[in-house]
Amino acid sequence: MNGAGEGPVITPQQVQRLFERLQKEAEGAGYHLNPDADFTKGLVEGLLVNEARYGYWACPCRLASGSKEQDLDIICPCDYRDPDLDQYDTCYCALYVSQDVVDGKKKATRIPERRPEERSSAAADAGAGPGRSARSAPAAGQGPQPGRLPAPELPVWRCRVCGYLCARDQPPAVCPICKAKKERFERFL
Amino acid sequence: MNGAGEGPVITPQQVQRLFERLQKEAEGAGYHLNPDADFTKGLVEGLLVNEARYGYWACPCRLASGSKEQDLDIICPCDYRDPDLDQYDTCYCALYVSQDVVDGKKKATRIPERRPEERSSAAADAGAGPGRSARSAPAAGQGPQPGRLPAPELPVWRCRVCGYLCARDQPPAVCPICKAKKERFERFL
Amino acid sequence: MNGAGEGPVITPQQVQRLFERLQKEAEGAGYHLNPDADFTKGLVEGLLVNEARYGYWACPCRLASGSKEQDLDIICPCDYRDPDLDQYDTCYCALYVSQDVVDGKKKATRIPERRPEERSSAAADAGAGPGRSARSAPAAGQGPQPGRLPAPELPVWRCRVCGYLCARDQPPAVCPICKAKKERFERFL
Repeated sequence: MNGAGEGPVITPQQVQRLFERLQKEAEGAGYHLNPDADFTKGLVEGLLVNEARYGYWACPCRLASGSKEQDLDIICPCDYRDPDLDQYDTCYCALYVSQDVVDGKKKATRIPERRPEERSSAAADAGAGPGRSARSAPAAGQGPQPGRLPAPELPVWRCRVCGYLCARDQPPAVCPICKAKKERFERFL
Repeated sequence: MNGAGEGPVITPQQVQRLFERLQKEAEGAGYHLNPDADFTKGLVEGLLVNEARYGYWACPCRLASGSKEQDLDIICPCDYRDPDLDQYDTCYCALYVSQDVVDGKKKATRIPERRPEERSSAAADAGAGPGRSARSAPAAGQGPQPGRLPAPELPVWRCRVCGYLCARDQPPAVCPICKAKKERFERFL
Repeated sequence: MNGAGEGPVITPQQVQRLFERLQKEAEGAGYHLNPDADFTKGLVEGLLVNEARYGYWACPCRLASGSKEQDLDIICPCDYRDPDLDQYDTCYCALYVSQDVVDGKKKATRIPERRPEERSSAAADAGAGPGRSARSAPAAGQGPQPGRLPAPELPVWRCRVCGYLCARDQPPAVCPICKAKKERFERFL
């Protein structure tokens, strides 16, 4: 079902199932899928195509290398989603948007690429191709590789309501535990 | 719909919708709304009235100043809910109660005000009024203001089952991630 | 209903109710019950028997002492579940299994006991008996006892997607907040 040049066959049922799963997971953690369901399902289909092709959910709006290790930062949800939501109210693909976009107070527009140039180039050099199957990708679940990337110097934020701790540039829009809003977080470390 | 002296109109449908949402969010994170549904819906209506009036969920049982920054600690769920649940099995309003209260093993009674006196006074000085609309409140989502309040010297607790970390006076009643009980937490930092 | 020598009576309805609750809680946090429902319900019944007998969910596959304090590490989910899932794709009882086992890629087999020998012996010395009722166990909810066990020297892991922090030997199989997979975690402390 995954021949070079034709692309994998994805059924509407598969799209619908993953769409519903992502929606449930997003809402449970204080995230939001783009409320334009047709647009969003197009992206979900892209994730399923990439899963069939590479063995992982490479971002549907970026060029994947086909090497899981190279693409780790752009497996959806990507490493850049949350900073982009903080700054632009949308992720690069507009698969995830802020509450303000859901409420119609803001619009999701094209945003600049936050991924460092050198990572994109490395990925391009690695040369993805449609014939690369999931089997040739490194096995999932082999765990993080400490030292591969320097640990970031990120602040630790604390939810004043429930004590949740997280390390990121900015606090999340809502606390994933108690749903308190961003302004209820304080710098902890 | 929000004239001075009359108060905003809240429909039973709005109350029911928020009641169900809060119930779902509470249970998902190991919290519990007061099982007396009529009482609880009265408080939920108070939240909706305050949202229409001030633009945020000021605690329905305390005097709001109408200044979001001044009232940040008493936006529901307030900064005092979890310590009050730890010590008294109920929050100040009795909107949130402990598992023991849900199970009928304890009763939610009137509890003392944990909010520092100087914060309540400051709020009173700021002078809330029913005519203050949501528009005059500071914009939501502008993020925390580090330095405004000193970071508390709180212990960090670790769930021995799943590794969840949180910073608060006491561990939560149940781990919001794996639902292990309070006694499964250990001091981590 | 809990006489020495006969054992507590557990109804199929109780089993079904707890089975469904555990399943929901597990899936919500990225864990999985054993997909063999009959086998799993047998273990769930064991938990209910132990709850009636001791007052807490002592592991159905280990010898409980009847002293809650002694058994704290083997109250289900036990302190050893997550390291066992990391290493063997199953917990000691096979109540919880990895995604790979759910997907049929791996099989849950008998695994060695991770609980330190001295803890098992201490428990055996304490001498559990069927006549010990829940009432004689220490009261639940009295909180952790710092210093009782030395705080472990565990690494802190950070989810690169959402910033979630946890302290454990290895990162979790999926981030309980944003569902990113294990390989998206990095060492933070």
